[in-house]
Parts: sequence; C-alpha cells; structure tokens
Amino acid sequence: MYSHLPLRNIEINDAFFAPRMLQARTVSIPYMWEALHDRIEGVAPSGCIANFRIAAHEQEGAFTGWWFQDSDLWKWIEGAAYSLSTHPDEKLQNEVDEVIALAGRAQQEDGYLDTYYIINGLENRFTNLRDHHEMYIAGHMFEAAVAYFEATGKKNLLHIACRFADCLDRNFGPEEEKLHGYPGHEEVELGLARLYGATGEKRYLRLAAYFLDQRGTKPLYFEEEARRRGEKPRNMDAKHAYAARNYHQSDIPVREMTAPFGHAVRQCYLLSGMVETGGKTGDETLVDSARRVFRRIISRQMYITGGIGSCHEGESFTFDYDLPPERCYTETCAAISLIMTAIRLNRVKPHAVYGDIVEKALYNGILSGISLDGQKYFYMNPLEVWPERCETRTDVNIDDVRQGWFGCACCPPNILRTLTGLGQYLYTAGERKLYVDQFVSSSLVHDGLGLRLCSGFPWNGNVSMEITQAPADEYTLAVRIPSWAKDTVFSLNGCAVQPEKVDGYAVWERVFSVGDRIDMVFPMQPVCMYASRFVPDYAGQLAVQCGPVIYCAEEVDNGRELWNLCVNPHSLSVTYDPSLLQGVNVIHAEGVRMQGSEALYSENAPAAEPVPVTMVPYYAWGNRGKGEMRVWMHRV
Amino acid sequence: MYSHLPLRNIEINDAFFAPRMLQARTVSIPYMWEALHDRIEGVAPSGCIANFRIAAHEQEGAFTGWWFQDSDLWKWIEGAAYSLSTHPDEKLQNEVDEVIALAGRAQQEDGYLDTYYIINGLENRFTNLRDHHEMYIAGHMFEAAVAYFEATGKKNLLHIACRFADCLDRNFGPEEEKLHGYPGHEEVELGLARLYGATGEKRYLRLAAYFLDQRGTKPLYFEEEARRRGEKPRNMDAKHAYAARNYHQSDIPVREMTAPFGHAVRQCYLLSGMVETGGKTGDETLVDSARRVFRRIISRQMYITGGIGSCHEGESFTFDYDLPPERCYTETCAAISLIMTAIRLNRVKPHAVYGDIVEKALYNGILSGISLDGQKYFYMNPLEVWPERCETRTDVNIDDVRQGWFGCACCPPNILRTLTGLGQYLYTAGERKLYVDQFVSSSLVHDGLGLRLCSGFPWNGNVSMEITQAPADEYTLAVRIPSWAKDTVFSLNGCAVQPEKVDGYAVWERVFSVGDRIDMVFPMQPVCMYASRFVPDYAGQLAVQCGPVIYCAEEVDNGRELWNLCVNPHSLSVTYDPSLLQGVNVIHAEGVRMQGSEALYSENAPAAEPVPVTMVPYYAWGNRGKGEMRVWMHRV
Repeated sequence: MYSHLPLRNIEINDAFFAPRMLQARTVSIPYMWEALHDRIEGVAPSGCIANFRIAAHEQEGAFTGWWFQDSDLWKWIEGAAYSLSTHPDEKLQNEVDEVIALAGRAQQEDGYLDTYYIINGLENRFTNLRDHHEMYIAGHMFEAAVAYFEATGKKNLLHIACRFADCLDRNFGPEEEKLHGYPGHEEVELGLARLYGATGEKRYLRLAAYFLDQRGTKPLYFEEEARRRGEKPRNMDAKHAYAARNYHQSDIPVREMTAPFGHAVRQCYLLSGMVETGGKTGDETLVDSARRVFRRIISRQMYITGGIGSCHEGESFTFDYDLPPERCYTETCAAISLIMTAIRLNRVKPHAVYGDIVEKALYNGILSGISLDGQKYFYMNPLEVWPERCETRTDVNIDDVRQGWFGCACCPPNILRTLTGLGQYLYTAGERKLYVDQFVSSSLVHDGLGLRLCSGFPWNGNVSMEITQAPADEYTLAVRIPSWAKDTVFSLNGCAVQPEKVDGYAVWERVFSVGDRIDMVFPMQPVCMYASRFVPDYAGQLAVQCGPVIYCAEEVDNGRELWNLCVNPHSLSVTYDPSLLQGVNVIHAEGVRMQGSEALYSENAPAAEPVPVTMVPYYAWGNRGKGEMRVWMHRV
Repeated sequence: MYSHLPLRNIEINDAFFAPRMLQARTVSIPYMWEALHDRIEGVAPSGCIANFRIAAHEQEGAFTGWWFQDSDLWKWIEGAAYSLSTHPDEKLQNEVDEVIALAGRAQQEDGYLDTYYIINGLENRFTNLRDHHEMYIAGHMFEAAVAYFEATGKKNLLHIACRFADCLDRNFGPEEEKLHGYPGHEEVELGLARLYGATGEKRYLRLAAYFLDQRGTKPLYFEEEARRRGEKPRNMDAKHAYAARNYHQSDIPVREMTAPFGHAVRQCYLLSGMVETGGKTGDETLVDSARRVFRRIISRQMYITGGIGSCHEGESFTFDYDLPPERCYTETCAAISLIMTAIRLNRVKPHAVYGDIVEKALYNGILSGISLDGQKYFYMNPLEVWPERCETRTDVNIDDVRQGWFGCACCPPNILRTLTGLGQYLYTAGERKLYVDQFVSSSLVHDGLGLRLCSGFPWNGNVSMEITQAPADEYTLAVRIPSWAKDTVFSLNGCAVQPEKVDGYAVWERVFSVGDRIDMVFPMQPVCMYASRFVPDYAGQLAVQCGPVIYCAEEVDNGRELWNLCVNPHSLSVTYDPSLLQGVNVIHAEGVRMQGSEALYSENAPAAEPVPVTMVPYYAWGNRGKGEMRVWMHRV
C-alpha cells in the first residue's frame, strides 16, 4: 500500500498550475467564504453559515438551500486546509477556526451534526438515507477534519468529526438494535476510512466496511425505509435513472458490480471509498471490484476530456459507448471523483493508466469547470455547444457560459479542494520508492530523497528531475510514461539511457547522488484521435490532442457553423501563443468549410472551400464570450 | 377559391394506395370500433364509448381517459364517413348511426356535448379553455358531421353538430355578456368553417373568425382565465414549451405570426383553420399569414420526410434548422396537419409547392406511422434509431417498434381519416379547371370532364391521363410537376409537346375530346439529398430519395452500427423487389464500412472496408423486427 506525500513536503512551482493555485488561494477561498456567508451581491444566497447559526440557536430563521448545504462548508474547509498546508495564513486559519467553533456549537450532544435535521426536526434524522445526505455531509466533514489536522496539527475539527463518527457508529452496524442502512450518496465510507487513518480508531474503518458490505443486500434497505416512511414503491422504470435503484448503486452488492451505473459522482465516490477501505482492511475483493468498474468506465463510458456521466437525468452513466457530445452531463465533480478513484487505485498497485486518467481529467474536463479568471464555473462540461440549442431545447441541459455560483454549489468547492490539494495527485510514495505520476514542476522530499522536477507540461514534454538530497541506500524512482508519448528520450546525467519499463513506468532503481539528473522528452505533437467503431456520435469525426491537452474549435476563432468545418488530419501544427488565454498552445490545421446550399434540402452536394482551422485547449473554451464550440470535428 | 372534388366523384384504383385504403376499411375501421368499445384484449381501454354511455345515463361509472377522449370517436366517424362515400356499407353505417344516436342522448339540452365535463361537472365547462379540449372535440365533431352528411346525406350528426355550434355561439363572441376566449388546442375554427360550408349558417363562420381574431389579444385570455381559476401564473421560461404561451400559439395575434411556434399539430390546425376561414370570408390577411408560417416551416423546420415538430417536450417546433434526427417528435398527426394546411393553401391559390409537400408527407412521414399490416402505429417518426438509446436514455423519447394502440390515441384515427379521405388530397377543382396534384391512379368526373389517371407512383414516374368524358367548352387541366422531377417528357395523343408551365404546373387549356391522352414521364432516379449548411445534424451526411420516396438503411439489411456506413453518392441504383415489404423499390449503393479501433479513443484512423449498402423506403422501416435505422448516412 502506497500513499500520497504529505502536502507540506511538496512545493509546487509549476508555470501552469502554480498561478491557478495562487488564484484558488487568493480569489476562490475568499470568494467562497463570502458566498457561504451570503455576502455576495447578485448571487443566490447559500444560507450555509446561516444554517449553522440557526442550528446553534444564535440566529432565528428557517433552513436555506439543499439538504446537503452543510457539505459546501466542509469542502471549503478541506480546500482551505490544503492551502494552509503549504501556505500558512493566519487570517484564513482564524476564519476556519471561527466556523469550526460555530459548528461545534451546533453539534448535538450525541455528536450528530446536520443542520437540515437539527433545524427541521431531529426526530426524522436517519429516516431517509436514500435521498437525504446526512452521511454524505459527514464524509465531507471527516475529509475536512483530516485535512485540517494534517495541515495545522489542530484537533478542533477532528474532535467534532470523531464525535459525529461515534454517533454514526452507535446508530449503524450489524447489531440488531442498530440501523442496517447505508447512504444514498456515498462519501462517508471514504471519510471514515480517512478518519481511521488520522486517528487509528478501528471502529471507523469497520463502519466504512459495514456500509459497503450492506449495499445491495436483500431486502433493499431503501425500499424498507421508504415503506416505513409510508411511501409507495418508486417507479422502477429503468429509463428513469432518478427513480431506479441503481441511481444509488444500491441494487446489487458492491462486489458484484461490473459496470458503472446511476449518478456518476456517487458511483466514483463509492469506488474511492471501496479502494480506501479495502486498501486499509486488506480486503482485495473490494479493490478488485472497484478496479473492474473503473476500467469499464475508462474503456467505454468516458469522454475524451476525462468527463463522465453522459446523461442529464440522474447526472448519470448510461450504457457502453453512449457518449453524446451535447447532451452529456460530464459534471466537474464527476471528473474529480474519477481522479479520486484513480489515485487510490494507484496507491494499491501502481500502474501508469491511473496517472494517464488523472492527467487527462486534470488538464481537460476538470479545468474546464472554472474560468480563467477563477470566478465562474461550469457544472456541466459538454464537448459540443450550439448556443441556440442550449437556450431553447429542453433536452439540451448544458450552460453555454460559466456561472458565478449555483443553487447546488457542489462543483466550485470541489475544484477548490482539487487545486489546493493538487500535491496529492502528483506522486505516489512507498518505502524508498517514489512514483512520479504527473509532470508538474515541484520540489519534494521523501524518505531521504530530495527531488526537483522541472516540466514544460502541458505545452512541451521536456521534463528534468534533479536529485537535491540523496538517501544512503538504493532508492527507486518510477516515472509514468504518458500513454500518448511516443519515442520518449531518456537520459541520466546527460547520457541517453533506456530505463526498464514496468506497468507503464520508466524505472530507475539505484543509489542516487545529489546532483543526479534524469532528463526526459515526451514529444508533444498534435495528433488526431478517433473514437471506437462502437460510438455513434463521432463517426466521421476526429478530435485533436497535443500532449495531455484536448483541443476544440471555437466560434470566436473560426466563425459560426463549426459543423461545416472539416479538418485535414495530416495538416496539424502547433505554436505557443503567450498572449492568448493566459498562454496556450494553439493548433493550426488546414481544413475546408463545406458550403452547402441555403435551401433546406437539395441535390447540390456542398462545395468545399479551403479555410484554416484554429483550435485552442478545451479547458480554456468559453473565456471569450458566448459562441459555438466543438471538440469533435468532421474530417476532410 | 377552389375546392376538393366530392369523394364520390373519384374512384381510386391505385396499386400503391388502394390496398392501403382497403386495409383501412376492412382492418382499421373495425379494429378501432372495437378499441373504442374497450373490446380488444391486451390493449389499454379507451373508455370512449363508455364515456358517452355514462354521460347519457345509460351506464354507471367514472370518466375514462384524456379530456379529449371524445375526439377519437369523432375522428373515427370522419374516417368511416369518407369510406362510406365511396364504399357504401350498411353494417358500418348502422354502427355509425348507433353511436350518433348515443351521442344525441348524451347531448345536453343547450347543445353542449363533451362527456368529460358532462360526467365530471358541467359547472366547470368553459373554465379551462387553455388545457382542456372542449372546442377541439367540437371541431372534430363538426368535421365528422360534414363528412357523414356529404357521404350519406344523413343529417343526424349534422343536427347534433349544429346544436353544439349554436351552444358555442351563444357562449363565445364579442358581446359583453359572452366569453371572449378561444381554444387552447385549435381545430374548432376549421370545423366551424366547414360546418358553415355544409349548412350556409353564417354565424358559424363568424364564430370561427372571432376565435382567430381573439388569439393573442391583450390581456391574454389564458392568463385571465387561469387567474379566475385561482392558479398562479405559469413559469414562462421559454425553454419549457408546455408552460410557454406560444405552446398554444396564443402569445401574439395570428396575423403577426412569422414563424411556427409551440405544439406542432396545434400550429398547423390553426393554419388550416385560418385558410379555411379566410378563404370563405375573403380575408386575405388570414391566408397570407398562414402562408407565411407554412413557407417558414417547409423551408426551415421540416424534416426531409415531411415530419414536423423537432422536440419531444411540447411535441413542438423549436427554431430554424434545429432538426435532430433522433430527438425529433415528428408526430404522425403533425405531418397530417401539415398536409391539411397545404391543400387548403392550394385551394386559395394553387401552386405546385403545396402538392410537393403533400406528396412528401404522404409517401414518407405519414405512412411511416402505420405498419404494413395496418395494425400497429408510430406516434413519433424519428429519422434515426439506435434501440439501446431509445430504451435507455430519458432524453430520447421515441419508440423503436410500432405499438398496437396508445393511451393518447390521436394518431391511429388520424391516419384512418387521411387514408379513407385520400381523394381530397389528389385534385383541386375550379370552374372548368382541374389541378392534378397527386399521381394516384384514379378516375373522376368534374364539370363535364371525365378523366382516368394511371400512375406508376411511387415506383416509377410514368403517368397517363385519358379523357373519358369531354365538356363542350374549353377546359383547363393543370398537372403538378414534382419538384424532384428533371427532364420531364410530356406527350399529347402520342406527340411530344412542351406544355405551358404556370406556378409549377404543366397546363393544358383546350377543348378536350373523349380519348384524348396526355402522357408524362417523371424520371425517377435515385438521388442524394444534402441538408442546408445551416443544419448541424446532417453535416457530412446525405439522404437518398427516389421520386417522392425517402429511403433509409436498416440493420436487418446492413448489419449493426449503421453510423459506420458511408455511401458513395455516385453509385446508386434502384430495383423493384415485389417480394420485399409488400413490393418496394430497393436502392443499392456502393459504400464502405469504417472499421475504427475497438479502443474507445486511439490515433488509428478507421480503415474503410468496401461493402454494399441497401436502402428501403423510410415509410416501410421497422416492419422486420427491432433494429437500427438511419435516413441520413455518412458519405464516402
């Protein structure tokens, strides 16, 4: 079992990510703090802090927002904590302590803490595990508590978390007098396993395992529970994901899952919880099942941007190869949940495929969720946008411009914690062994090794690693070779070498000396990508990738009716434009614009007019006003 | 102002349509009679006749079905009446008389007749014109009454219709004490104008004009009415067509309409009513507005099959060039409503464009609504079907197999009345003048002229017309030249001639003699059709048309994954196969099957494997089991 490096042991100075992390610290954290306090004009009130105040009897009023509103605070604290790990900030820490104290005052004597039920009636708590999110909230609280403890050494939130975890442990479990349920929105399993990791309290790990083991056992808990609430059985029409049992991944036991189903974020939070728990209990069956589903996702149900969830209704997975570009859900949170799963699978048994997926999602389907100025967000990340359709058709449920905030504001703090906690995604650490998973310029120390990594990603593939501190003994460095990289050139101290390749990693096992230097070039050439024959939506089309980055054509560069543009796949070239979109590689292609008739239907085959085609990174789309966008382009 | 020929003056003996009309008479009419009586096992009860019995106090029970359930009976009677016009049938006539008598017993003293309100409480009648369909039902009753009167000379239903029309006239109109509303589902305007035509009662025409004039006047009646019912104002989010005012075409006055909006059937029933009314009152502004909207539909919002309504929600129009093939609504009734509009516009001022649209919808998007055995129906007529998607995705709301009946059974009797009343669509008659609009083999007499038309449509374009009875004076015959016909060859009595062309018709103005013969060949070659540059969904694709028929590829002929097939546009050939699908032209093309990688995404460009492509008429798809279907195919 491997782990991530403590964040304080990594210093990220990456030309691409460091400014985004700075923006997260200096723009997003304060913005969200204000948003949680309902102090941003023109933005729908969150009610989050107010709910805690009301729950603590420090303010009058009714509960505001969704029943999972508390989780916004916990995710914000987690994001702030990661930031504090590397960038201590007294003012921010005071703010966090202030809301932790408030939460402590709202917490019930028995440890329960969910402001929705505290305000609306505790007698109904734990009666609707299917739809309400008490344990989802708890899971995020536990993650925040662990993060804050690791960042600051302070136990204030950890104490609150343990009290809530103890409360859950008293209420759920195999004993006859306890409830035998499990959450409708998974997350607490991951949170409990992490809380066990921070505290060593085995009950938490056992409870995580219990929740996982209970899912899908017959009779189905959610049906029994609904009956106890006096509700009629739900319509189980498989077409309606919300109503179907597999929306919550509760129709079969977790070890029997073979494909992803239902709500995409839930599915991947479940997988993350399975791996985190199974990894800690040594239960390989949990990990194997999670790995099986993960592999199915990335081989049949993932967009080329790393987005997942191809259906708006239920924000859900559908079926293999159903990947429409315009009617996807591809929620920012879902892409994040995918990389949460990937890094955990990698910690069990490292393989480059996991880093490939983290890279793909990070540079594409996650980063597209936030505007370049860090102040606006996409909840959905479509691969094709025709604004008229977004704004008119009820079956096209995507935004064509990023929004300042959402009524359901799960994505903004999720991006925040991903960016400030980015260090967790870069390396996988074992005993005298380090896997380099991402090429983000950074310095680190681990087990006596100091390493400085300099990377040109994502604009060029030049990477150099220098040993800044050397352990006495043999040490293993394993560097992921990106799946897109061809003819990689490696050198050690200036001499070309061919390192051993194991599971997609280039491996150096040796006694390192200070000043040792490994250089790599992963040539980044723009290439055309084609979808599987099984995917209907991209037939006759191609997507352009250069290194880890997926490109798209935008109206602002290419004019309207992007569907008429055809790209010559043999004509791609790339130039770096420092002035465009905060500096990006731009892809230039020769193409034609098909000039069909104006008549609705005619026998006149469209004429092809040569035109240049310009493509920019997908993550940066929609930062220059509203307009059409396409990732998949017709080919000449 | 022109008219259609009385049905009894036309005898249809067309090889293509006559068997379908026979099937309508011998299969559909009795089947629907049984369905209306709830006597078909395994089919959801209609409740229609039972509702009339309950309303007449001849049976106990509650109202069954939709609030427009009565209309199924009236449309069935209209269809039966057209059949009786040409094929007297004592048993059928007795059945019709039997239900007319029942309806008479259910009719209220003041003439009101809508079983929904009679059973559920007359105090609420005329309080929800927006959503309930009292006047829609009335309109269908009036059409049925006129048809039955014209077919049989019997006034029993006409009497009931006039009593209901009188009731409406007493309740609606400009006078202060009357209601100033109009129907939420248009149809009564058309019915009233036709009732005026049959009875000469000017009040009916005036009332039709009143309903038309009232639409869209401020304050909006439906909002006032909703307020009177104590309802909150509706969410006017334009994305939600059902809620939006233009779902009912009630947001602006009818003379200000420039584009189609809202529910497609309502829109075209409205246009039909406008033309029927305007044509009779001489109000050209009504006709001009209807013509403008009709032209906009066919030039920007019509599928190549003649289907209309590109969105499931609201069964509605969306916006120009938004014509997705898989998420269309393209209701069978909507295509019917389009040709109802077309023939009426043609009667005001004939132009071949109207016959073109009638031809397109008849041979494609209407006929696809019924199975070859005449017993199963499509409500929606998509242009692309991937069964997995139909059965899984909630945003793909099309059936992949025809159904026996529907809870909302508007389409089956609509197809019935279209087929049995087909004679109305074939010719447009004026004084000593006849327009031949459709090439359906038939014999007719009009104004002293007898004509026998023999046609090979839709499988070949050979048409001959022989004068079987000659008027003494000059007479004008105008024959539509189909828009797809190139290099048409005409001959008169065996000698090649070039007739005058007026508004798309070939015109012969002369003193005809018995035995005169006009022959025409409209060469039917398979051609590739391309969509406008403004339509995103068919970029890089083509559709195949041969004569009036649109073709499609089916899985049963071409294997799965039809999206990988590419058609060589220069390779089409056609053969008639008498044993396939009751005899059809089959199109053969050279093509390739793109063999993309099995991997979800890869750099491997798909290889092209030559394959033959087989296409069958679109209207006949889905008659050989469930499978994929595509009208628009990728091109080589």
